[in-house]
Amino acid sequence: MEEKSYDQRRERLLELVRSKRLKALQLELEEMNEFDIAEFITELGEEDSLKMATVFRLLSKEHGAEVFAELDAPEQQEIINSITDKELGEIVEDMYVDDAVDMMEELPANIVKRVMRAATPETRALINQYLKYPENSAGSIMTAEFVDLKKYMNVRESIARIRRIGDDKETIYVCYVTSADRKLEGVVTVKDLLLSDDDAVIEDIMDRNVIFCRTTDDRSEAAERISDYDLLAVPVVDKEDRLVGIVTVDDVIDVLEEEATEDFDLMAGISPSDKPYSRTGVVEMWKRRIPWLMFLMLSATFTSMIITHFEDALSRFAVLTGFVPMLMGTGGNSGSQSSTAVIRSLSIGDTEPRDILSVVWKEIRVAVLCGITLACVNFIKMLLVDRILLSNPDVTVMVAFTVSLTIVFVVIFAKSVGCILPMIAEKIGIDPAVMASPLISTITDAVSLLIYFTLATIILRI
Amino acid sequence: MEEKSYDQRRERLLELVRSKRLKALQLELEEMNEFDIAEFITELGEEDSLKMATVFRLLSKEHGAEVFAELDAPEQQEIINSITDKELGEIVEDMYVDDAVDMMEELPANIVKRVMRAATPETRALINQYLKYPENSAGSIMTAEFVDLKKYMNVRESIARIRRIGDDKETIYVCYVTSADRKLEGVVTVKDLLLSDDDAVIEDIMDRNVIFCRTTDDRSEAAERISDYDLLAVPVVDKEDRLVGIVTVDDVIDVLEEEATEDFDLMAGISPSDKPYSRTGVVEMWKRRIPWLMFLMLSATFTSMIITHFEDALSRFAVLTGFVPMLMGTGGNSGSQSSTAVIRSLSIGDTEPRDILSVVWKEIRVAVLCGITLACVNFIKMLLVDRILLSNPDVTVMVAFTVSLTIVFVVIFAKSVGCILPMIAEKIGIDPAVMASPLISTITDAVSLLIYFTLATIILRI
Repeated sequence: MEEKSYDQRRERLLELVRSKRLKALQLELEEMNEFDIAEFITELGEEDSLKMATVFRLLSKEHGAEVFAELDAPEQQEIINSITDKELGEIVEDMYVDDAVDMMEELPANIVKRVMRAATPETRALINQYLKYPENSAGSIMTAEFVDLKKYMNVRESIARIRRIGDDKETIYVCYVTSADRKLEGVVTVKDLLLSDDDAVIEDIMDRNVIFCRTTDDRSEAAERISDYDLLAVPVVDKEDRLVGIVTVDDVIDVLEEEATEDFDLMAGISPSDKPYSRTGVVEMWKRRIPWLMFLMLSATFTSMIITHFEDALSRFAVLTGFVPMLMGTGGNSGSQSSTAVIRSLSIGDTEPRDILSVVWKEIRVAVLCGITLACVNFIKMLLVDRILLSNPDVTVMVAFTVSLTIVFVVIFAKSVGCILPMIAEKIGIDPAVMASPLISTITDAVSLLIYFTLATIILRI
Repeated sequence: MEEKSYDQRRERLLELVRSKRLKALQLELEEMNEFDIAEFITELGEEDSLKMATVFRLLSKEHGAEVFAELDAPEQQEIINSITDKELGEIVEDMYVDDAVDMMEELPANIVKRVMRAATPETRALINQYLKYPENSAGSIMTAEFVDLKKYMNVRESIARIRRIGDDKETIYVCYVTSADRKLEGVVTVKDLLLSDDDAVIEDIMDRNVIFCRTTDDRSEAAERISDYDLLAVPVVDKEDRLVGIVTVDDVIDVLEEEATEDFDLMAGISPSDKPYSRTGVVEMWKRRIPWLMFLMLSATFTSMIITHFEDALSRFAVLTGFVPMLMGTGGNSGSQSSTAVIRSLSIGDTEPRDILSVVWKEIRVAVLCGITLACVNFIKMLLVDRILLSNPDVTVMVAFTVSLTIVFVVIFAKSVGCILPMIAEKIGIDPAVMASPLISTITDAVSLLIYFTLATIILRI
């Protein structure tokens, strides 16, 4: 076991680059895996993009294609700019088609043209076909490099076929059995093959109960199949039920991470994007964040109107104003707890929209418990801290009672809205993550004030 | 391709159960995969737990163990209660050790005792060993069922070994080469084996540069290795560098989903737990949610104190009160955008704590852009809507200016705090997700009020 972590290696590699000891560098790189090399090249690019290309040229042809696929768009572009058309052509041919398509979607049009010109006609046709699938569909992330078998083959023939064509397949461990017209008939794993007799016929050992998805399905459906059924790959069929590609488990991990990031973004009022934080420019970040901030700021006009409406009462009972932020905060936090829990539960398939009644009932009971606990603590705190410790005589028992009773209603309202809105969104086909904390806080803010002033009017007769 | 989705099957299965046509049901179940059967059994359990056990007994021995592993703790417990010790023993023996350990951690102590009694001494020893690893460590999620090879073996011998022992291994596709003292020396895939000559020696085709992790590493490190390096499994070694288990990609998908759920929970001020939403009782939900709500409610005392302090000024300039909710909301939303983006970026490894200066500098520039945009729109809106449309003469140009200027400072402050706190948390080893919206909103609320009243004192001379 000679594992050397990238961090330990880093300094030595940088030293080799600086002292131009390219032969030693090449030997070192040969031992490393594509992920670490890509990270190293990206780091180099930060100081000097020329060095990046120099290091890249040291890689063997096959290794080069793998490293290239791991790089992000800006570095890919930098490297494309500094290599010949012939070198570019070799890289594209050695890349898996789905990686090449991923790359195309990120690169500027003039570079895409150069890449397409450098590819062979067959690769070009494949890439073009893939680019036609809708964004974020299973079709757009699948790969055509799978092993197909026929049901009349026996195990020996099948293994021979895998040995012959397996080298450039993305996975050889799951093989798909197709009919003459390319319809998917079954699935057989290399484990099945190895554990069966050499003369056994595929038809007898294949599993006919294939879990699959369609090219037009959302990519998250492919991810769900793989995750639910613990698969290494899921086959993708077209409208005519013909097998056109597979989605492998490593792509699915990326999908799951991207989808979670998308939910985080949406829930914080940020327009989602595929770009990681570190790669997003300031202006782009502003564009992704300003719409919700603007909308929420403007919709706060309602809270202003409510406060203005009760201005006279407030000036007579000025002590009430001091508790407005606490009430709105408690409402907002209660609501976002519920919305977050429900949104997450929906997105991992733990809850379905049809469960709406039981979810609301559960949230209301939790809200009653939380509301009463908070109200009791607040009542004691207002009398002990605000009245006695901070010696504010305006905080009377009736004021403390009004504020505490408001808390109960506000928490119940906030938690109900917090669970109902995401469930409705899911039902009508909107991403429930949009119905998250910022929106719910804004609604809760206005309603909290209304509840507060209404109760104050009744109890304190303001 | 005879794929029938579970939803289509469901009604027919239920009908078979109701009419007690057990033979037909058994045939149907034999064709289904363990995930769908587990879902069906869980659904049955909701109406009648006796039926659940009846259906479970129809499954073949092996199939039974797989289905059992897919069930949640309450259903497992239900079934354990209604089968004999002999049946229980068979199930435990047929389960992968890591699945059995998962189960043990969820079941009540008296049931665990029964399970342990039913297992063979070897299985019992293995389970006990696993239960000793810290919670959420790589050791706690690994499985001991891997294929080990020796470096002096040739390809033919290796494949023969896989055929002999591969049946009950969690993956056969990645094999680990170990020395006589069980130290990890290399890794070889079945693809390498199949694509090599039958007489090739493992030593020559194995990859010595093994990506591994340690039993005491956090499980998320195992997940990161698999996700970064696109692996099917990562080997786990103990303190003496001996190979003791592997973590497979299907477990890692679960880990990634659980870690994301944990971040969502923390960021909404909910204490995280492994239990899905639908399985969490009302009192447990209250316990997980009340601490943060309580803390945040009590810490709002500061905002009350600030407002009380400025009470006189506010009663003379009552119009200012109306904009407090908008300012606090805008601050909270701006801050939570930054904290969410940074927390997510940290958790997928896109940003490191050492990037703190560049992150803060980026967030400040975004904040200046957002702040100015919002301030301009707000200035126009206050004069057009509040002053003219809602004919509120108190909203003067100077008031609008004060509120708008406050927005600029509040947004800059909120976005700075929103990115700095999570970065510091990560640096000192606290989960950055704790530093999320609720906490940042509370800080921002108090500071927003201070900025607002200070600017108002200067500009409006209140």
